[in-house]
Amino acid sequence: MSPAPTVVENPAFKHPAFNRIPPWVRAKLSPLAIEKIQAVYEWVENECIPREQIMKAQLEGKRWVTPPLIHELRDKAKQRGLFNLFLPNHFKESPGLTNLEYSCCAELMGRCYWAAQTMNCHAPETGNIELLAKYCSEEQKKKWLAPLMEGTASSAYSMTEPDVASSDATNIGISMRREGDEYVINGRKLYGNCLWNKDLTFYILMGLSDPENPDKWHRHTMIIVPCNTPGIQQVRNLTIMGYDHAPEGHGEYLYTNVRVPAANVILGEGRAFEIAQGRLGPGRIHHCMRLIGQCERAYELALVRCTDPRKRPRGKLIGEFDSNIERVAQMRLELDAARLVVLNAADTMDLLGNKAGKRAIAQSKILVPAMATKWIDECMQIYGGMGVTQHTPLPEMWTYARFVRLADGPDAAHRHQVGREEMKTAGGFRERNEAYKRRYKELAEKYGEKYVSFD
Amino acid sequence: MSPAPTVVENPAFKHPAFNRIPPWVRAKLSPLAIEKIQAVYEWVENECIPREQIMKAQLEGKRWVTPPLIHELRDKAKQRGLFNLFLPNHFKESPGLTNLEYSCCAELMGRCYWAAQTMNCHAPETGNIELLAKYCSEEQKKKWLAPLMEGTASSAYSMTEPDVASSDATNIGISMRREGDEYVINGRKLYGNCLWNKDLTFYILMGLSDPENPDKWHRHTMIIVPCNTPGIQQVRNLTIMGYDHAPEGHGEYLYTNVRVPAANVILGEGRAFEIAQGRLGPGRIHHCMRLIGQCERAYELALVRCTDPRKRPRGKLIGEFDSNIERVAQMRLELDAARLVVLNAADTMDLLGNKAGKRAIAQSKILVPAMATKWIDECMQIYGGMGVTQHTPLPEMWTYARFVRLADGPDAAHRHQVGREEMKTAGGFRERNEAYKRRYKELAEKYGEKYVSFD
Amino acid sequence: MSPAPTVVENPAFKHPAFNRIPPWVRAKLSPLAIEKIQAVYEWVENECIPREQIMKAQLEGKRWVTPPLIHELRDKAKQRGLFNLFLPNHFKESPGLTNLEYSCCAELMGRCYWAAQTMNCHAPETGNIELLAKYCSEEQKKKWLAPLMEGTASSAYSMTEPDVASSDATNIGISMRREGDEYVINGRKLYGNCLWNKDLTFYILMGLSDPENPDKWHRHTMIIVPCNTPGIQQVRNLTIMGYDHAPEGHGEYLYTNVRVPAANVILGEGRAFEIAQGRLGPGRIHHCMRLIGQCERAYELALVRCTDPRKRPRGKLIGEFDSNIERVAQMRLELDAARLVVLNAADTMDLLGNKAGKRAIAQSKILVPAMATKWIDECMQIYGGMGVTQHTPLPEMWTYARFVRLADGPDAAHRHQVGREEMKTAGGFRERNEAYKRRYKELAEKYGEKYVSFD
Amino acid sequence: MSPAPTVVENPAFKHPAFNRIPPWVRAKLSPLAIEKIQAVYEWVENECIPREQIMKAQLEGKRWVTPPLIHELRDKAKQRGLFNLFLPNHFKESPGLTNLEYSCCAELMGRCYWAAQTMNCHAPETGNIELLAKYCSEEQKKKWLAPLMEGTASSAYSMTEPDVASSDATNIGISMRREGDEYVINGRKLYGNCLWNKDLTFYILMGLSDPENPDKWHRHTMIIVPCNTPGIQQVRNLTIMGYDHAPEGHGEYLYTNVRVPAANVILGEGRAFEIAQGRLGPGRIHHCMRLIGQCERAYELALVRCTDPRKRPRGKLIGEFDSNIERVAQMRLELDAARLVVLNAADTMDLLGNKAGKRAIAQSKILVPAMATKWIDECMQIYGGMGVTQHTPLPEMWTYARFVRLADGPDAAHRHQVGREEMKTAGGFRERNEAYKRRYKELAEKYGEKYVSFD
Repeated sequence: MSPAPTVVENPAFKHPAFNRIPPWVRAKLSPLAIEKIQAVYEWVENECIPREQIMKAQLEGKRWVTPPLIHELRDKAKQRGLFNLFLPNHFKESPGLTNLEYSCCAELMGRCYWAAQTMNCHAPETGNIELLAKYCSEEQKKKWLAPLMEGTASSAYSMTEPDVASSDATNIGISMRREGDEYVINGRKLYGNCLWNKDLTFYILMGLSDPENPDKWHRHTMIIVPCNTPGIQQVRNLTIMGYDHAPEGHGEYLYTNVRVPAANVILGEGRAFEIAQGRLGPGRIHHCMRLIGQCERAYELALVRCTDPRKRPRGKLIGEFDSNIERVAQMRLELDAARLVVLNAADTMDLLGNKAGKRAIAQSKILVPAMATKWIDECMQIYGGMGVTQHTPLPEMWTYARFVRLADGPDAAHRHQVGREEMKTAGGFRERNEAYKRRYKELAEKYGEKYVSFD
Repeated sequence: MSPAPTVVENPAFKHPAFNRIPPWVRAKLSPLAIEKIQAVYEWVENECIPREQIMKAQLEGKRWVTPPLIHELRDKAKQRGLFNLFLPNHFKESPGLTNLEYSCCAELMGRCYWAAQTMNCHAPETGNIELLAKYCSEEQKKKWLAPLMEGTASSAYSMTEPDVASSDATNIGISMRREGDEYVINGRKLYGNCLWNKDLTFYILMGLSDPENPDKWHRHTMIIVPCNTPGIQQVRNLTIMGYDHAPEGHGEYLYTNVRVPAANVILGEGRAFEIAQGRLGPGRIHHCMRLIGQCERAYELALVRCTDPRKRPRGKLIGEFDSNIERVAQMRLELDAARLVVLNAADTMDLLGNKAGKRAIAQSKILVPAMATKWIDECMQIYGGMGVTQHTPLPEMWTYARFVRLADGPDAAHRHQVGREEMKTAGGFRERNEAYKRRYKELAEKYGEKYVSFD
Repeated sequence: MSPAPTVVENPAFKHPAFNRIPPWVRAKLSPLAIEKIQAVYEWVENECIPREQIMKAQLEGKRWVTPPLIHELRDKAKQRGLFNLFLPNHFKESPGLTNLEYSCCAELMGRCYWAAQTMNCHAPETGNIELLAKYCSEEQKKKWLAPLMEGTASSAYSMTEPDVASSDATNIGISMRREGDEYVINGRKLYGNCLWNKDLTFYILMGLSDPENPDKWHRHTMIIVPCNTPGIQQVRNLTIMGYDHAPEGHGEYLYTNVRVPAANVILGEGRAFEIAQGRLGPGRIHHCMRLIGQCERAYELALVRCTDPRKRPRGKLIGEFDSNIERVAQMRLELDAARLVVLNAADTMDLLGNKAGKRAIAQSKILVPAMATKWIDECMQIYGGMGVTQHTPLPEMWTYARFVRLADGPDAAHRHQVGREEMKTAGGFRERNEAYKRRYKELAEKYGEKYVSFD
Repeated sequence: MSPAPTVVENPAFKHPAFNRIPPWVRAKLSPLAIEKIQAVYEWVENECIPREQIMKAQLEGKRWVTPPLIHELRDKAKQRGLFNLFLPNHFKESPGLTNLEYSCCAELMGRCYWAAQTMNCHAPETGNIELLAKYCSEEQKKKWLAPLMEGTASSAYSMTEPDVASSDATNIGISMRREGDEYVINGRKLYGNCLWNKDLTFYILMGLSDPENPDKWHRHTMIIVPCNTPGIQQVRNLTIMGYDHAPEGHGEYLYTNVRVPAANVILGEGRAFEIAQGRLGPGRIHHCMRLIGQCERAYELALVRCTDPRKRPRGKLIGEFDSNIERVAQMRLELDAARLVVLNAADTMDLLGNKAGKRAIAQSKILVPAMATKWIDECMQIYGGMGVTQHTPLPEMWTYARFVRLADGPDAAHRHQVGREEMKTAGGFRERNEAYKRRYKELAEKYGEKYVSFD
């Protein structure tokens, strides 16, 4: 009998933090990454999840004030070296992880809704920090980026509008008129964190500065709008499936003659699309990895319910029903497949750059939230009547996953973009098929067989 | 050329209230039903839907008080003869509609979340009224049923428990100990309208009165528990996907030595299952028809969005995308199919009784909420980022449909029951297949062909 | 306790032929229909299904010759009064059933692939007979219709073409040039029964007679092409998922200067679309009802497998696995829902005419074959390795259902048509929503509440 | 602006053979693998696909004779060093590729149904070669393995039986009675290549040799049965969805007193399960990778159809319909995700051994064939009426994918196994949840918040 290969894995991987990481990824982890992944695991398990109810209690009655808990934990996490892990190692400000390595951290963060925030790794901060690090002048960086990375400021991203189909950003219509060395902003915005929370420092806003430009890709400008600028009014808090998502939340805003210094323009007037393109890559996969972590927790809860000795419909445990056995298996397998998709996207960015990773990022964005909503929903169903109440965190998890199906544009918009690009590849396949036929014709002659045409 | 059949339909059916009613159902509507369907339509369109935001405003800050609006509208609806329409015409208390006819009304009521309540046709009142009408003594009826039908009292149904798998009701464990001419109740309940709303008059509670009875179908008793009985504590309001569903809501309760007169027992000790069986039929299809009405409204909103001139991703209206054209078509067709399912269930109850309608009711209960969640979710997606916010009623609609997938037990429990019954029919099919083979054997001989066996 | 309604059903309905017919349909069946449904049931169960393997044996080695069995059974069925049942009672040639009544027969016919043919109720004969009965002159009827109804001739329908997207029939391009009192046909056709079977008498062909007509709906003509006309060549038999569907099959044809008398034109030159519109209604729901009958048989086979005592993976019967219990239930319920959809379409045609039934027909055409392929596929899976072999009729059933998803155009084309019509209704809903808002504005004022706008 | 990482990829990867291989896999390919992948690509594109119709022609009328084409191509492929690539590099007989590297080859092979056979990499040969290489004595290897690897013999695997649920192999019941130094075999088998093809040399058969053994895992024995042994009768060819899969096909067999030397027993009496466990790993992922290659070809055909200038329903190309744009995108993304799943399984076997790869193999086995059937089906639908005929290879592709959903046991059986193992992990999650609560209790006290319990 032939010998099987013998393999010795790094004993560090016995730690539960690495349980779900596939072998090809483990093999690529640096010692720093191994240390950080483990530290993030301990942090989330011991410091975040057990405080979830306390967080809720601190928010009661004071919805738009960041709870003391968050401040306390952010200080601690910073001391422990868990701040800003997301910033990839090709930035000079980076703590040194690759996108792939950080993805393993992000999954663990996803297990608690606000854990990423304690590590300054939450949306939209991460995307904004990367944007500022990439496109700002050194002076701007000092003013706006440094406090974000220090955790002493907080930012939001303001792109969506109620009046247009903003999934196609060329439609964005909020007016940004230059007057002297200021821009005057008028119009409406939807989404972006709530102004009501006084910890919010500034918005990165995309506006229409040059509506007459014949090139629709150069009509828009990205600008930093400090929250205390007069003229910005929050019309309401947007609830997401009924949740206010306090204390950050989402808002609807009215801009009336809001005056912002031209020095706050990022990269230059008319260059918003250049920036928007660069912004979205890593942020999207962070969302997806957090969703996977969230699904893992939903999965664990489902197994807990499946084996709850108090729940015995028709005399069997929930998990003794073959239908649930099959459901659990299918969830396990699809969840693990989703992780492969996101890790591949992260790795592609590491190996070939964000642009080359675009397709893999879109793949994550389209497949993962849909997978997550489907399976968290099944977990609720397994829980029965309790599954949709606050007895479990599942309704909040589902809502977040559902929201991500729309964040940065609905699935369909992304699918449409991928599909349009794919259609362009058809020419090559048409030629290939013609080549098959030509060669078949020659061969048919050679073999003395009749040429059969299906044209 | 042969003549096509010429048909003259009742001109009353030109009224929009009848738009979606299939011809076979129209043909069965009595003049009374035609009048009531039309009246319900006008009521919902003109008096309820336009007040939706006002209702929300009245509830703000006073979550557990029935808003004045509801009282006002209930009075008016009663005057207009729109009260208690649900009670089928074989009850002496009935206003005279069949289940089929009422189903057409229920669909229209579903267009506004609380419209049914203004007509005293809301859950759990309807099920409770039918239960009391069916199983109470005349004396009990006078005390408990009459005020419900008058609309001067309000009731809830208390069956689910946190400590057992109550989708299998034989597990129900709250203790009901007889002491003299009282029962003493101790234990916990989940769901059932909130005690915090002082308009709630009584619970119909199912408890375990005879735990040692060898026959598990006779261990439980149904009893009327007035809300003001000392010892009932509402531990919390249950949120459903984050919604508190005020001012009725759902609660979690602790019963500590709650003493109720034995005269409040319905039908007799140990007869809870007899009652529970009879209760669920029509109530389930009311839920389903309301969901269909809700889906119609979601559908209309989707079409409104599809043709919103402000929304033009890539230069086309949302509804000019072929993918949305196909989605809308599929929703239209599945929604119409769902209506056929529920109307057939109602009609079966009318023609053959509730027991014969059991399968068709289960069919509605299993298929309709799943259809509704799927398509309301698609409507949200068509709406883009706005679809999950309070900009549309879609999130609340989805949540109600999602809830109904669990109310009265999760889909899987109902499917399991249907499946078990179906498996029992296999014997007949086995015989039929054997008969085919026997006859084939004879015929093979007759035709001089070889008998081919696949056994 | 209130009395439940007591119901006495016609004792005829105890016969198994009526098992799956919903009460509202039963209530509409005439005595003639009751008799015919029962007779069709006996015919299929006793004369057709047991001969399935004999049919296969007779076809071996003689694929394109109608087997003697078919001739024998057609003679017998005709004697028993089971011929042409499909022709609705508003035709003078009709045996007297409504569309609804015939649908009940069609379901039973669907239990055996070729049973309809023994009763002269098979596609495309039924559609053709209805077409000829509707649009032919009396002279044409004598020549072409009478032998079809007698069963002494056999016809096919020739519309699809390999060179265009013929799901949009305005594309049809086969050339029909008038020369004197003849038309000369040149081009290619796909589908339509095989010319190789010498029992085939004629095609009803749709061709392009007036390509320059500015009105694209009047460029095409429908003409009867006798099969023995010189110049028609069958290039090949089309296999459907590998099946040749002998002895009728589907073919690919080359027309080279095929000359047909102008007297064979139906209704008049340029009127093909008028005819095509009228043809498809009932034929489509016949397909659908036969699919439902086929699904019932697949369902029975699944139950047989579920209770096969020889098959005990992990010590349990296949049908003792909860996952299969749930699958069986879901199939049962969706199958019953599909039947309601088709019966409603038939009934709508009866009550309001074919044109009013168009939507319900499209609903059947889109929903039923998709349902059928899904569930027959599940039945194969329940059968394990045997499920895809000739041990069961399931692969042939699946293939037929899959084919119907494409016959008369793919699902998507039909969905697209429904969707386009629905989009046109959006205007009404936009107005309705504006009306809600106007009234809300008035009411807000009246109640002293702030008007909240989400525009 | 921070610099993006600059990456230089191996220029060899510009070759189309590497188009779909994800970066992390490319980075692991050895020079040998790069060479072989390219060679396999050229082989399949230039020598196999253009001969597909010639292969069909050679099989006509001689279904059970291996066509001369196959012999010719196998000789050539062997000369080119393309034989036996599948055998992983830890076997001394291996040509030197890892499982991961071979997977990239297998995908390309999948583009033509019989391409793998020309490279001696087809099922069941590959599984059998690996089995014999692993478990045979050197003497047995010389006799049975060497000719298989040389390509001068051909083998089949015989496990499934018609009389039991053989997806649970403990049920296998064919009798293997020891008599002297022979085993006498009696019973029935299903599947396994056709005896009718005289190129078949032997079966590896699993039989019941010790029915009374109390340990059900040691009742069965694996034995080599030469095809020319008297007493084996092929009852029929099994068609799969109507296809005979000539010239290998699948058969149904009757064993009557078949006498085989005991020397042909593999590993030892009663050790069949030990062998069966080891056999299935790599073979399953080969199937899956071939399916992916097949799907790629289906995908290319769909794009060809989408851009066919002759097909313009409603004036647009098929690929200009947004619904098809979205379908194509979704197929692209799910197909790429499926590849990641299989490649990860291959890599896991390489890194940690076949046993550690078990879960990832099951993941491939369950997810990939389901994905493949779904999307090939959609491609057929995109093709319209032609999609199910022999005009495209899609029906054969679908059938192969459908078959793989059942090969080695139906999906459900595999899902059930995964689910049972997962349920065993619930204990750990129960403990974890208890730990969260304990820590929450401590923290609540510390923070002075009320402890909220949902138990």
